[in-house]
Amino acid sequence: MQEGKPNRPTHGGNLVWAAGLAGCPAAAILDFSASINPLGPPQSALDAIQAHLADLSHYPDPEYRDLRQVLSQQHGLPPEWFLPGNGAAELLTWASRDLAKQAATYLLTPAFNDYFRALKSFGARVTAHPLKLEAGQSSHLLIPAPPGSGLLLNNPHNPSGRLFNKTALLPLLYQFALVVIDEAFMDFLPPQQQQSLIDLVPQYPNLVILRSLTKFYSLPGLRLGYAIAHPDRLARWQSWRDPWSVNTLAAAAGVAILQDQTFQQQTWDWLPPTREQLMAGLAAIPGLKPLPSSANFLLVEQRSATVPELQQQLLKTSQILIRDCLSFPELGEAFFRVAVRQQAENQRLLDGLAAVLQPSGLPIPPDLE
Amino acid sequence: MQEGKPNRPTHGGNLVWAAGLAGCPAAAILDFSASINPLGPPQSALDAIQAHLADLSHYPDPEYRDLRQVLSQQHGLPPEWFLPGNGAAELLTWASRDLAKQAATYLLTPAFNDYFRALKSFGARVTAHPLKLEAGQSSHLLIPAPPGSGLLLNNPHNPSGRLFNKTALLPLLYQFALVVIDEAFMDFLPPQQQQSLIDLVPQYPNLVILRSLTKFYSLPGLRLGYAIAHPDRLARWQSWRDPWSVNTLAAAAGVAILQDQTFQQQTWDWLPPTREQLMAGLAAIPGLKPLPSSANFLLVEQRSATVPELQQQLLKTSQILIRDCLSFPELGEAFFRVAVRQQAENQRLLDGLAAVLQPSGLPIPPDLE
Repeated sequence: MQEGKPNRPTHGGNLVWAAGLAGCPAAAILDFSASINPLGPPQSALDAIQAHLADLSHYPDPEYRDLRQVLSQQHGLPPEWFLPGNGAAELLTWASRDLAKQAATYLLTPAFNDYFRALKSFGARVTAHPLKLEAGQSSHLLIPAPPGSGLLLNNPHNPSGRLFNKTALLPLLYQFALVVIDEAFMDFLPPQQQQSLIDLVPQYPNLVILRSLTKFYSLPGLRLGYAIAHPDRLARWQSWRDPWSVNTLAAAAGVAILQDQTFQQQTWDWLPPTREQLMAGLAAIPGLKPLPSSANFLLVEQRSATVPELQQQLLKTSQILIRDCLSFPELGEAFFRVAVRQQAENQRLLDGLAAVLQPSGLPIPPDLE
Repeated sequence: MQEGKPNRPTHGGNLVWAAGLAGCPAAAILDFSASINPLGPPQSALDAIQAHLADLSHYPDPEYRDLRQVLSQQHGLPPEWFLPGNGAAELLTWASRDLAKQAATYLLTPAFNDYFRALKSFGARVTAHPLKLEAGQSSHLLIPAPPGSGLLLNNPHNPSGRLFNKTALLPLLYQFALVVIDEAFMDFLPPQQQQSLIDLVPQYPNLVILRSLTKFYSLPGLRLGYAIAHPDRLARWQSWRDPWSVNTLAAAAGVAILQDQTFQQQTWDWLPPTREQLMAGLAAIPGLKPLPSSANFLLVEQRSATVPELQQQLLKTSQILIRDCLSFPELGEAFFRVAVRQQAENQRLLDGLAAVLQPSGLPIPPDLE
């Protein structure tokens, strides 16, 4: 498994595979495939990690009191409504165990590949509900489903970046027996624009919110997320998993970053204008059609070549990695996704794409196929 | 949950509760309750963590190629026979899911509390098989069980410290449909004394070994363990859990510590004589009867008072925390467990115990109850 050329990765973050194609060290790849905040990690996280290295010889507090206390202050709910996890992905696994108990689970597609993994893990019966990508921001979301069904969606939606308004989601809480909303990218929106359902959790025991702390704070290697749901549900999840799911350094970093208002404001100031600029730059390249997005990434439709060809060309000519959408079967070879990065990096992407997509640039010559 | 006095902890490592009773900061507690190597963490682990802080903004390699390669070299099996986990406790959860498919699961008792949690998580039917604590090292282990049963035991056994020989365990691989052996403390034995079944895994697809890397290397806050089993079984476990279960810093530390022969030798040189000295010291205190142990902890029977009284007295007089055995119902209030620590610390424990257990020391006066 460790030998030879690595297999094509199933997730955007695998740089080893890309470096092999680009013929450079993994660190030299300019990675647009993982939707991670380019401004981070914040210094507050690194300071907290350093300050807690001496604690590694003790077990983590299995109740994660400090972290839950900060989450409580942040969201205005008592600590027992929060369960920290080893990344939001761990909590998705336990949410899927609850979804598998429903008669069916409706899933907005295209959907993050790990949703299928998690739902399959516990034998959930999955029904796809295709999202119309060409439609604009939705004021409502009609999903025909029989009573007793579950629903899993993310907001903003990945990979399209579409944001659903609270008013569009509210009726779903009456329609579905269990609603799991993955808000992994919600914190990228400025507070007044966020459409989180966290404040509704106390009124709806059938509502579960999943949040990530590693995309906005650029710490996916550390693994940290949390769930917000009724304490009885979270106590059940806790009994399913081991007591020390979150490592000491992640718990300490979480306490620090949730209170790092400077970093938060920097990100909220950076993202909207930078995203609009990247969007305009992409739209100006013949054959590319970026979709409007509320998140820190853009889904781009393109017709000039297949995306795997384009992806390989970009790696070879510019050491730039874009996210193909092969893991989203509905999108196939006609779409790619790029993270919004710092302005100079985005310009490198635009230059690289323009060079590859110029009339003589593609289709790629046979010797590169 | 975060307010008021913390509840009595369910695991030995919870210092917050102890500090409240001792009236001191948690860092001032001399902790004999968690069975962690006092010589660590090794500098190699801390160096590896520092060197990989810059990688936190990338996802971990979901295949953990580097770590599995080192495990492969260490144990002489191909990398696909190893699955790293977020602590051995995470892997116990997935092992228990396999055990729950068996007609019954036999469990050597007294047993680590988290075994019951994990087995219950997937509805395993648990049958206790009591270990005779007064017997010496076992040359064989007879567990009457119907065909199609599973077995979960740890070797060395926790909390008794008893070591089962390979020859005692081999017949169980023929008798049981699935055998899960938790070797969390096996690495504390010098190589030539270890009784690991790892080398038998290729011949027995019904054998699963769990190993911890955080007890010997004093890194329980970092979370790192691994399973050794047939690749098909490990691939199934991988499909049940999320792809990035082990954080980047733990994976990097794992690569370093597994190759740190200096630290390993130091530990193997330190433990046997220090344990014998502590054992002799405990046996010399009237009313205490330590059991022979092959691990880095000693189970001690005592008749002078109940252990919870003794535990509280020791906290108040000496800021020393011992492990009560209330979570092992078979042991109740008559046993406690202590880690073997450095010689001077062990002496502090012996002095503290002798003072509390002197004829006038216990029973405790009513105002302390």
